[in-house]
Amino acid sequence: MTRYFEDIRIGEQASLGDHRFTAEEIVSFAERFDPQPFHLDEQAAAESHFGGLVASGWHTAAVWMRLMVSHWQRQIEAEAYAPGERRPRLGVSPGIRALKWQTPVRVGDTISYSTRVTGKEELTSRPQWGLVISRNEGVNQDGREVLTFLSQVFVERRTVAGQQP
Amino acid sequence: MTRYFEDIRIGEQASLGDHRFTAEEIVSFAERFDPQPFHLDEQAAAESHFGGLVASGWHTAAVWMRLMVSHWQRQIEAEAYAPGERRPRLGVSPGIRALKWQTPVRVGDTISYSTRVTGKEELTSRPQWGLVISRNEGVNQDGREVLTFLSQVFVERRTVAGQQP
Repeated sequence: MTRYFEDIRIGEQASLGDHRFTAEEIVSFAERFDPQPFHLDEQAAAESHFGGLVASGWHTAAVWMRLMVSHWQRQIEAEAYAPGERRPRLGVSPGIRALKWQTPVRVGDTISYSTRVTGKEELTSRPQWGLVISRNEGVNQDGREVLTFLSQVFVERRTVAGQQP
Repeated sequence: MTRYFEDIRIGEQASLGDHRFTAEEIVSFAERFDPQPFHLDEQAAAESHFGGLVASGWHTAAVWMRLMVSHWQRQIEAEAYAPGERRPRLGVSPGIRALKWQTPVRVGDTISYSTRVTGKEELTSRPQWGLVISRNEGVNQDGREVLTFLSQVFVERRTVAGQQP
C-alpha cells in the first residue's frame, strides 16, 4: 500500500501475521472500551451464552489494524527509492463495509490475519487519488473465520488522471 | 436493548453521551493499535495530509462501544423487574455495516454519539431471537458527522416464534 495506485493489482494478497489473544489483553481492552461481562470476567462469561471469556469484536478488528500498519512498514523498508524520489502517500480511509464477526475469539486462540485486493476505483472527484478495496479476514487455529470485512483506502496515483505523465 | 425484541420500536433513538478526545488518549490508542504518524506524533501529523494529530477511526468506534455499554447499563438500572423475573438476554452481534469516517477527529474535539433503531428482523433460523438494526453516529462540536454506521444485535424474544405465549 506504500506503492502508487497504478502498481497495485486486483487479486494480490498478503499474510499480515498471527496474533494470540490472552485473557489479560482481552480484559484490558474490554475495561476501556467494551465492559460487558463476557469480555471482562471468566466466571460471568462462563454463565453467558458464550460459555467462556471472549474478545470484544472491536478488539479483534483493532488487532487487524495493528498488523496492517506493521505490514505497510515492512513494505516501506523493503522498497528501494532513489535519493530524492517521493514516496506515494497513503490517504484517508473512507470507511469499512460488511464487518462480520462469525466465530467468538476465546482465550488462547491464535488468529491469522490476511488481506486481498478485490477492487480499484478511479475517482473523478479526486484525480490524484485512487480507491483500493480489500477483503480482510482473521481465521482461528481451527481454520474458522472469526472476522471478515472490506476495507477501503485512498492511494496516491503516479499520474494525475487527465494529465500526461 | 435490555428489553425484549417485541418492546423495541423502529424509530426510537437515544443520546449516548459526549466524549472529548485528548492528545494523550489518541496517542495511547494509536501506540497499541494504529501506530501511523498522524495518530502518534504532533509534529509528524502536522506534516501529513491531516495537518495535525487525529484519532484512529477504530478509536472513535471503540468509544461508541464504551458509551453504548454504559447506555445499556443505565437501562438495566432504570427498569423494574419482579423478583425472579428473567431479564431478556442481549445476544451476539453478527457485525457492522457501512462504517464511515467522514471527518477527522482532532485533539480537543468533543464527539456526541447517538443511536436510532432503523429496522427489526424476525429470524426463522433463530426463533427465540430477533435482529435489531440501528444507525449510529458521532457528531463533533461543529455539528459535522465524524462517524456513522449500522449496528446489528440479536435480542431475545418474549415469545418464541411459532409458539403460544
